[in-house]
Amino acid sequence: MSEWIPIGTVRAPVTEMSLGNWAAVDSEIHLDPRYAGGLAGLEEYSHAIVVFLLDQVSGFDPAKQLLRKPRGKEHLRAVGVFAQRTKYRPNPIGVTAVKLRGVSGNVVKVTGLDALDGTPVLDLKPYIPEFDRVAEPATPGWVKDFMEGYF
Amino acid sequence: MSEWIPIGTVRAPVTEMSLGNWAAVDSEIHLDPRYAGGLAGLEEYSHAIVVFLLDQVSGFDPAKQLLRKPRGKEHLRAVGVFAQRTKYRPNPIGVTAVKLRGVSGNVVKVTGLDALDGTPVLDLKPYIPEFDRVAEPATPGWVKDFMEGYF
Repeated sequence: MSEWIPIGTVRAPVTEMSLGNWAAVDSEIHLDPRYAGGLAGLEEYSHAIVVFLLDQVSGFDPAKQLLRKPRGKEHLRAVGVFAQRTKYRPNPIGVTAVKLRGVSGNVVKVTGLDALDGTPVLDLKPYIPEFDRVAEPATPGWVKDFMEGYF
Repeated sequence: MSEWIPIGTVRAPVTEMSLGNWAAVDSEIHLDPRYAGGLAGLEEYSHAIVVFLLDQVSGFDPAKQLLRKPRGKEHLRAVGVFAQRTKYRPNPIGVTAVKLRGVSGNVVKVTGLDALDGTPVLDLKPYIPEFDRVAEPATPGWVKDFMEGYF
């Protein structure tokens, strides 16, 4: 298997784990300058998918993290790792759709990225409805309450 | 940096590179049995995000692939790798939203996954609107024609 290669780094005002208000966060993705040429044309999209490495998480412990109450909340029942967006995953990869605010040189300005300052970025993809948009996805009841205020 | 750990494999009727009709493709994701417990609760969602390894692609050649005419089509202008969904990426990671048709044991039945039979899966995330859905994303003109018939 190959190794992950960071293509850049998140620069954000958020430096500690946070569970709220990400929609209001303006961040920048600073690409490794050798990849800057790969941004050509990104400015024509309104949104992008950021694939990032949840590098503050060390290891995955199946005994504790395969099945877990979301955020450890006692009133919820345990849910599998693949049925929640917890950062404790076999491959600690985050995927989030963000708003693009501008591209300049090797810097991409985004809004709504739930990643801490210093987070390594693995990929940046344009948001294309056919790949990414589901008109009316169904989610379990606990998710709605849970997401309130996160973005 | 860590290495990618496949959590499972795609079983699909498609065995050769294809550029069309993926929306009609029914596939299965066969998880490594030791991760099967992580699927609990996934059946309550209608859709999921599949993160997979584009393992048929060997290496990334910046000279040829950083800026490239999509699918090599001569009438299009060259576009950066981060402004298209080409499989030739610094980190060959695919991200696609799919429809869930059922979960049974370590097998997840999905529809609309644009991955070949045998593709390693890196992560499976429930599709949650706050993370994943953009109501009205803008894309450049070339994308619309380009996507026609892909899904």
